[in-house]
Amino acid sequence: MTTLPTPDLLRPASYVYGTWHANPDGETLVDAIYGRPVAVISSQGVDFAQALAYGRDVGGPALRKLTFHARARALRALATYLMERKEDYYTLNLLTGATRRDGWVDIEGGIGTLFSYASLARRELPDERFLPDGKVEQLGKGGTFVGRHILVPRDGVAVQINAYNFPVWGMLEKLAPAFIAGMPSLVKPAPQTAYLTERVVRDIVASGLLPEGALQLVTGDPGDLLDHLEEQDMVAFTGSAATAQKLKVHPNIVARNVPFVTEADSLNASVLGLTVRPEDPEFALYIKEVAREITGKAGQKCTAIRRALVPRDRVEAVVEALRKELGKVTLGDPARDDVRMGALVSTAQRERVEATLEALREEARVVIGGGESELLGGDREKGSFLDPTVLLCDSPLTARGPHELEAFGPVATLMPYDTLDDAVRLAKMGRGSLAGSIITHDRSEATELVMGMASTHGRLLVLNRDNARENTGHGSPLPQLKHGGPGRAGGGEELAGAAGIKHHMNKVAVQADPTTLAAVTREYVPGAAVREDVVHPFRKSFDDLQVGDSLLTHRRTVTEADIVNFAGLTGDHFYAHVDEIGAREGIFGRRVAHGYFLISAAAGQFVSPAPGPVLANYGLENLRFITPVGIGDTIRTRLTCKRKIRKDLRPGETRPTGVVEWRAEITNQHDELVATYDILTLVERARDGVDPAPEA
Amino acid sequence: MTTLPTPDLLRPASYVYGTWHANPDGETLVDAIYGRPVAVISSQGVDFAQALAYGRDVGGPALRKLTFHARARALRALATYLMERKEDYYTLNLLTGATRRDGWVDIEGGIGTLFSYASLARRELPDERFLPDGKVEQLGKGGTFVGRHILVPRDGVAVQINAYNFPVWGMLEKLAPAFIAGMPSLVKPAPQTAYLTERVVRDIVASGLLPEGALQLVTGDPGDLLDHLEEQDMVAFTGSAATAQKLKVHPNIVARNVPFVTEADSLNASVLGLTVRPEDPEFALYIKEVAREITGKAGQKCTAIRRALVPRDRVEAVVEALRKELGKVTLGDPARDDVRMGALVSTAQRERVEATLEALREEARVVIGGGESELLGGDREKGSFLDPTVLLCDSPLTARGPHELEAFGPVATLMPYDTLDDAVRLAKMGRGSLAGSIITHDRSEATELVMGMASTHGRLLVLNRDNARENTGHGSPLPQLKHGGPGRAGGGEELAGAAGIKHHMNKVAVQADPTTLAAVTREYVPGAAVREDVVHPFRKSFDDLQVGDSLLTHRRTVTEADIVNFAGLTGDHFYAHVDEIGAREGIFGRRVAHGYFLISAAAGQFVSPAPGPVLANYGLENLRFITPVGIGDTIRTRLTCKRKIRKDLRPGETRPTGVVEWRAEITNQHDELVATYDILTLVERARDGVDPAPEA
Repeated sequence: MTTLPTPDLLRPASYVYGTWHANPDGETLVDAIYGRPVAVISSQGVDFAQALAYGRDVGGPALRKLTFHARARALRALATYLMERKEDYYTLNLLTGATRRDGWVDIEGGIGTLFSYASLARRELPDERFLPDGKVEQLGKGGTFVGRHILVPRDGVAVQINAYNFPVWGMLEKLAPAFIAGMPSLVKPAPQTAYLTERVVRDIVASGLLPEGALQLVTGDPGDLLDHLEEQDMVAFTGSAATAQKLKVHPNIVARNVPFVTEADSLNASVLGLTVRPEDPEFALYIKEVAREITGKAGQKCTAIRRALVPRDRVEAVVEALRKELGKVTLGDPARDDVRMGALVSTAQRERVEATLEALREEARVVIGGGESELLGGDREKGSFLDPTVLLCDSPLTARGPHELEAFGPVATLMPYDTLDDAVRLAKMGRGSLAGSIITHDRSEATELVMGMASTHGRLLVLNRDNARENTGHGSPLPQLKHGGPGRAGGGEELAGAAGIKHHMNKVAVQADPTTLAAVTREYVPGAAVREDVVHPFRKSFDDLQVGDSLLTHRRTVTEADIVNFAGLTGDHFYAHVDEIGAREGIFGRRVAHGYFLISAAAGQFVSPAPGPVLANYGLENLRFITPVGIGDTIRTRLTCKRKIRKDLRPGETRPTGVVEWRAEITNQHDELVATYDILTLVERARDGVDPAPEA
Repeated sequence: MTTLPTPDLLRPASYVYGTWHANPDGETLVDAIYGRPVAVISSQGVDFAQALAYGRDVGGPALRKLTFHARARALRALATYLMERKEDYYTLNLLTGATRRDGWVDIEGGIGTLFSYASLARRELPDERFLPDGKVEQLGKGGTFVGRHILVPRDGVAVQINAYNFPVWGMLEKLAPAFIAGMPSLVKPAPQTAYLTERVVRDIVASGLLPEGALQLVTGDPGDLLDHLEEQDMVAFTGSAATAQKLKVHPNIVARNVPFVTEADSLNASVLGLTVRPEDPEFALYIKEVAREITGKAGQKCTAIRRALVPRDRVEAVVEALRKELGKVTLGDPARDDVRMGALVSTAQRERVEATLEALREEARVVIGGGESELLGGDREKGSFLDPTVLLCDSPLTARGPHELEAFGPVATLMPYDTLDDAVRLAKMGRGSLAGSIITHDRSEATELVMGMASTHGRLLVLNRDNARENTGHGSPLPQLKHGGPGRAGGGEELAGAAGIKHHMNKVAVQADPTTLAAVTREYVPGAAVREDVVHPFRKSFDDLQVGDSLLTHRRTVTEADIVNFAGLTGDHFYAHVDEIGAREGIFGRRVAHGYFLISAAAGQFVSPAPGPVLANYGLENLRFITPVGIGDTIRTRLTCKRKIRKDLRPGETRPTGVVEWRAEITNQHDELVATYDILTLVERARDGVDPAPEA
């Protein structure tokens, strides 16, 4: 039988201003299973002012030199590099009391977040150092004054203070969006598990994949770090509500308006729907989900289910099923294959949970657990084991403790409810939660609960038989979705895809004339000066094309024959095009050309037919038909290069290309706009010529 | 000659829990021009806990019953109502020391913000009580697990603490987005000018246009208001940085994570470009802009230009021109037509400005003003007049005061610079500003300055000859654009169009199977169950159509004749369609159908030709061509009702309609996706029938 190895005493160091800073002395940490010394930790001698200055003066400028796509490439390479070394992290993970399965969420979940943000940046962001945001606003009727928002990285350092429970994911989920945004990180992990964080940072530094200064690490006490923050810095904190409240009123943070983003653990609720019967698949899903959230990471998750809301007449069945499910959970040394749940991070943590349990028992009683089951390895006294424990609060609408006191361990409280309104009231009594879940297959019940709980939650999972196989669970934040919640949950927001990146940037409204705004944002703005030259824009390679390159086509008179032929060819005999009587009574008052004919004829006007750098039209956006075109009207089209997005070669691709977005404007003989739209094309990159030969 | 009227002593009251609460005693305010008593103000006896509870329990639920569009209609009606009463506000405006022109910004600018948000809500938001946000995220490869964010109004009260300088705009620019979001407001104006705010609130209440409880007003001291805030409330504060810092660390705000949004006045910079010569139009524009910002509202604007950055060799010319421009500014009683600038709000304010001026003179010297010019009406002693004053700081890169000390009055400091890098450094020495401006016609200079200043500014105006007529000026926030800034400016964000609404809502990620997510968000989600019935969806009125109604069309085999005919009809002879040799060497390896043919043929498949409720296809979004279609391939199309947006009848319109967005999916004989897109149609509303007769 495998047991937890005893490593040499670790001496996790800080990585600041480009060097590793170790200390021979410091606080001694013990492992969570046997209570043996595992690491000595201290940040003594670290110059925090210097570290922040180094981030600002070295890391920031180096990062901001890279485009979003270059940062994404570095992040993807780093993710691959770390994934190859993951077994080292799994070894240390066991010392923290966590099982390999717990470690998977932390380690591979963390590295997965790097992959996810790398991919998002290349898919959704331009290959630039700034981010145009939202649409161009017309600020004057004459069209000479317009505005648009852009986002640029904050000039400072993102100080990231993490909790002990996810030493890898906690660091990487904050690092990834900050890095993509262009902001250097200074990471301050919780001491209890900092040796695992440090191990990963050692590999990151050794990889050389991130620009110097983009990541610093403070292992141990943060000293006077916060005193040296400046206006362009920011703090992202994960941990207890009490610590958050203490830190965010730090005089220097307040005086300089340093953004302080908080994720605090919250008393998350999971609701079993009123419509769910014990024989439904949703009943079994509920039991599994609650049990998993109680035991995963020994309940030390800020998103874990703390309050299980159950229809009153199902309480007995739930207790029985949950007792059976939790009865299968074996505690002990997580290095053993037969162990399902490890220990809390420390005996101090166990004592805190036991004290909270005691307080909870004033308004609730223990119905499952609460004893000391047999251990499979590990030391009951020196380790920090605690059995899964379920309480039942009979009158939750009048109770306070179960909605306010968090036992940050394998503990949850069952609460009966009678109506969906009461379930919503109970869920809201947590005063703000990171996550909630609703287990039902009834969609109107799900809708009612989601809408009722929406204002006080950061994420809501509806779990049922349809998504049972693929759902990622109540407690799992995802890079694409918001992680954070109002009130008790801290009021912060992390992840949520591109939003997580934007939180590290400053949004500024730019007001100017269209030509200047186009120059600043590197995107064509309607009304901006265009450039027309003898070379057709479809004859220019991606690299030769410039934003603002434009073509005004020849004219075409739309005839009755065009409309008739188009209807015959496409089969679209809509009355507004082909029925003189119906069309006269319709909103246009006469037969008009098909909208699709107009954009097709426009392509006939602007396309350059011979093979050339423009390989394909792969999409179209923002099409609006503005003025109808009748028989005898004459159209022409202006096509202008709107923006360019360079693409990296993917494995197997041989032709370097980029995306070129064109603004198309069809006008009639009165210069009225007929239709406007954006065309997406794939265009070959080629430095050496205007008309490269297509490759086989 | 008109002079300021002496009104009866005003007794502005508070409007709380549905009643007006007046006090006979309180602080006596005097007018700014002659120092005569104008109002007595006190909030004594107001029960702040009750006011907040009333907002939460009465105002919030009433507001949340309305859809965004219903709120928008109320706001538009209110704006019209107030505009008809604007002269009453202009009368009181003079008492605050402001000219009619100053009042225009405050009064009509404020009412304009209501119009603007009413229009935005109807244009950009759905006719719902919640707001789907961003795209649907695929969370599992099998397509059974998806996620999306939605926004719902916060359940609490938006406490809005305003500054004295814009008693009308200050209230309305906060009220408008909160109201559209569905959050009730409790407004606390600064006492100095609260009588004008109260006058407007009296009209709002009398209009009966807002639901009861949607707006409350506290005139006077806020008492223990902040002690009673709860997690779902929020505070939006405009005023001095010192007061903001004091309020935002209020223990109850910190303990409950109540969002606290700050707009603080900042030391905004305006940069005259290096390339601008004295004879250029931009030089004159710069002089006019700086002078206007010094004198407008007697310089009491949080966005005013405090630091004028000028190329070193232009300093003399700028001083001379500015002296001439400011020499035209007449001070006195703003009721007189010949007066260009009024007074500061109070003698206390004048004393603060004079003290700051004294401090500024340690590192700068007065070059314009600083004396006491002739007054045209008004009382030099009892009124609060101060002459426009310009200082010159010769070594601004080493000075501190001019970047930190704000004289909130008609005062600015000129600062010479040598390079654009230095100009950026100087601008950033303000440590965060609401607004900045750049005056140049050189677009690369503009770009360099915008990018350099972007991280420390909330809004940047590029001013030049091209937008001189239409630009709205350095100091004017606009509803469409961000108002706020990092660091010294408070770190907040207001306005910015829809973003200003979203700040009053909670964002929650919803995870579910596609069918449940569609039920919750009332939008079709790819993969969700659809409903097919015998009635063609184009035969259903807007009211009869349901999200998820779907049609799977007949098939069509695409032939060589189709491609040839389409090329001939449209004129689009692109080689990939018509050139066997070129196409074989191209990325598809064979001739393929035109993309536009495919979407046209799809319309031929799904359109129902006879007149019916679908009036027109007016646009298309998100078109992506996924699999090419070659000769002999067979396509068919699924058309599904994706979402519906009810439209109000506009004046002159006779047919009630709504927008219906359809999801179109073209597939080939292998069930591969050929193309996907969203079609926007205008559909008639009709309660009574499936096939209403078109109206003439």
